Amino acid sequence: MQFSKLGQKFTAHSGIMQLMADLGEALNSDQPMIMLGGGNPAKIPQVQQVLRQRTYDILLDEARFDSIIGDYAPPAGNFAFRKAMADLLRREFGWKLGPENIALTNGSQTAFFYLFNLFGGETPDGGFRRILLPLTPEYIGYADAGVAEDLFVSAKPSIEYLDDVLYKYHVDFAHLDVGDDIAAICVSRPTNPTGNVLTDKEMAHLAQIAREHDIPLIIDGAYGTPFPNIIFTQAQPLWDDHIVLLLSLSKLGMPGARTGIVVANETIVQAIASMNAIASLAPGNIGAGIAQDMARTGELIRLGQEVVGPYYRAMAQKTLGWFAEAMGDTPYRIHKPEGAFFLWVWFPDLPITSAELYARLKDRGVIVVPGHYFFPGLKEDWRHRYECLRVSYAQPDDVVRRGVAIIAEEARRAYE
Amino acid sequence: MQFSKLGQKFTAHSGIMQLMADLGEALNSDQPMIMLGGGNPAKIPQVQQVLRQRTYDILLDEARFDSIIGDYAPPAGNFAFRKAMADLLRREFGWKLGPENIALTNGSQTAFFYLFNLFGGETPDGGFRRILLPLTPEYIGYADAGVAEDLFVSAKPSIEYLDDVLYKYHVDFAHLDVGDDIAAICVSRPTNPTGNVLTDKEMAHLAQIAREHDIPLIIDGAYGTPFPNIIFTQAQPLWDDHIVLLLSLSKLGMPGARTGIVVANETIVQAIASMNAIASLAPGNIGAGIAQDMARTGELIRLGQEVVGPYYRAMAQKTLGWFAEAMGDTPYRIHKPEGAFFLWVWFPDLPITSAELYARLKDRGVIVVPGHYFFPGLKEDWRHRYECLRVSYAQPDDVVRRGVAIIAEEARRAYE
Repeated sequence: MQFSKLGQKFTAHSGIMQLMADLGEALNSDQPMIMLGGGNPAKIPQVQQVLRQRTYDILLDEARFDSIIGDYAPPAGNFAFRKAMADLLRREFGWKLGPENIALTNGSQTAFFYLFNLFGGETPDGGFRRILLPLTPEYIGYADAGVAEDLFVSAKPSIEYLDDVLYKYHVDFAHLDVGDDIAAICVSRPTNPTGNVLTDKEMAHLAQIAREHDIPLIIDGAYGTPFPNIIFTQAQPLWDDHIVLLLSLSKLGMPGARTGIVVANETIVQAIASMNAIASLAPGNIGAGIAQDMARTGELIRLGQEVVGPYYRAMAQKTLGWFAEAMGDTPYRIHKPEGAFFLWVWFPDLPITSAELYARLKDRGVIVVPGHYFFPGLKEDWRHRYECLRVSYAQPDDVVRRGVAIIAEEARRAYE
Repeated sequence: MQFSKLGQKFTAHSGIMQLMADLGEALNSDQPMIMLGGGNPAKIPQVQQVLRQRTYDILLDEARFDSIIGDYAPPAGNFAFRKAMADLLRREFGWKLGPENIALTNGSQTAFFYLFNLFGGETPDGGFRRILLPLTPEYIGYADAGVAEDLFVSAKPSIEYLDDVLYKYHVDFAHLDVGDDIAAICVSRPTNPTGNVLTDKEMAHLAQIAREHDIPLIIDGAYGTPFPNIIFTQAQPLWDDHIVLLLSLSKLGMPGARTGIVVANETIVQAIASMNAIASLAPGNIGAGIAQDMARTGELIRLGQEVVGPYYRAMAQKTLGWFAEAMGDTPYRIHKPEGAFFLWVWFPDLPITSAELYARLKDRGVIVVPGHYFFPGLKEDWRHRYECLRVSYAQPDDVVRRGVAIIAEEARRAYE
């Protein structure tokens, strides 16, 4: 049996497939793995308790249960949830939007798949436009999402050294080239993998560029604001009719429900609905059903601010401490953790590639994500690309700490 | 803002978008609509009761709930469910398969989107291969699922007249042309929209053609065998390493959970997993979680055989009776209902198009699906295409009966 050209592209080795396969393997493995790869959120007891209660609420209302499980959503997604979400965002931030500005997808990755191909690729008049990622490292899951080959173009950041260990990436606006061949701009905020949070000033600048070029600025808020709010700095949520804000229930604790939330102008929302109809008939109802009252009451935002954000902020600090203890005089730097739940660990002048370090760690039962996958669209050679690992701190303390100790050992061995 | 060429294709008017939008509108409308469009399953009390109980079982087991809602599945889908499903199919039919032969997707529509593009379209050496639908009318949801333009090629059936009203389509093997430009063959069984069930002999013939050409035979079993078993004739389930069998939990009563099940050889299952990773990270866990014990114990098959199948078989007979009562001497024919939950009503020499009849019915508060959407890939002119409606009988008796009466009135008026 022979695959099409597109079939071969989509089934070639991809970073996101390796990441998700590692995650699944570790979760289903008989031998305990130290799982610091993947983007699985922590099981925070207060959150799990709320999710169980909301699910139980649905079971108590037979008609509601029957409808959530037994009815197809409309192509843009469950209407009641979209309305509750629009009301919440209007109430909290004064954004002028209604349910017609909200579309749901089966996870926000699906929304990215739609959006990148909706805007990028061959133009109706035979040209070609790309998606600009203004700052790499950027999310591994974007890299292979293009139907068209070579869909992304991206830029190196400028680096600010904060102390002996910490540093921070910034968008290098001086070298950012936005021509007519750019179909959309996309950033994750907080950045996955680095935990960088683009400043309000950087965001305003990007939004201005998008408006000037009449192209969308796609903001991946899967870990961000206004929920789950895994952000440890000041960061203002922003939205206007040129901004496509992607939110998710996954990092709050519901990845199994696959609920992505697109906040956009009506044209884009209708396009997402059309693609949902074609590629999946309708998005699922269950995540929306569980979260509906949480959106209506604002619990979604409160949980982020009071429970989820503080939980990961504490974990980030602890994990920085464990690295400091374990690394000794082995060279390393870590991007300042400003959000999400990863440390982006840089081993300057590492004598082996990050792929090799990943493999050695996997042999020792520690799963991380090698950094070289996080530079989609970057054409120029940059050694930095092969010197970093993404290390999740969403596991319990003892697991993360043991993992960090083994990472330190293997890094030291690599430098010897 | 400008969409790509592909974006324009996916956001152009599509039959499946109209169908799903009608469905959503009717479910959320303030005025009661008579909803005989869409593919929403009936709410059968015995089924709803089981689904509620299985959901409650999950809530009672905190660790299981936390894992189902709080963990990403691996890219091929929840492992425990895939294992239970493989065990069930091996036990019931003796098929030689394991969990490595099962992949889950967010609804079976998503699996079709993957499969059509995995096989069909541009070949690696610059050729072009299409998906063959050997018998139209065929499912509306396939029509727009191609990334490539003009992905489908299809054939007219032969027609067997059974009595004054009933008739049955057959695959016209004498005129079926399967050249090297065919990438895969696809049939729905029972056929959506007609309720036709291809005979075991027709299926064996198609399977043989697929094997001879080393291409997959994709069988859409969303309504079929072994579950939900909405089949009113004898029909043997079949599977081998050239057959891709697509099953779903939707028509059993769980469309809100979006759970498609692909049964295929390992290469195809791994390809589906790769596409899941790229287009959605992972399929959802909740449908799989609710149905896992139902697969393990065989309840999934029993419910179909003892409850779901008989329910729709009785509705089909009643609806045929209501048509006989209401139509008087207005010309009409109905495809013999052998499965699924639609009547495919043919108005020979109808003076208006089925699209116009659909619009007149919608004005009167009755939603059906106009037949012309169900001929994807059919190049030749065929008046039959504009003379049919798909009428769902998944609503309560009084709703279907009132709808049928209005359909009869409008048909009569069209012939006057």
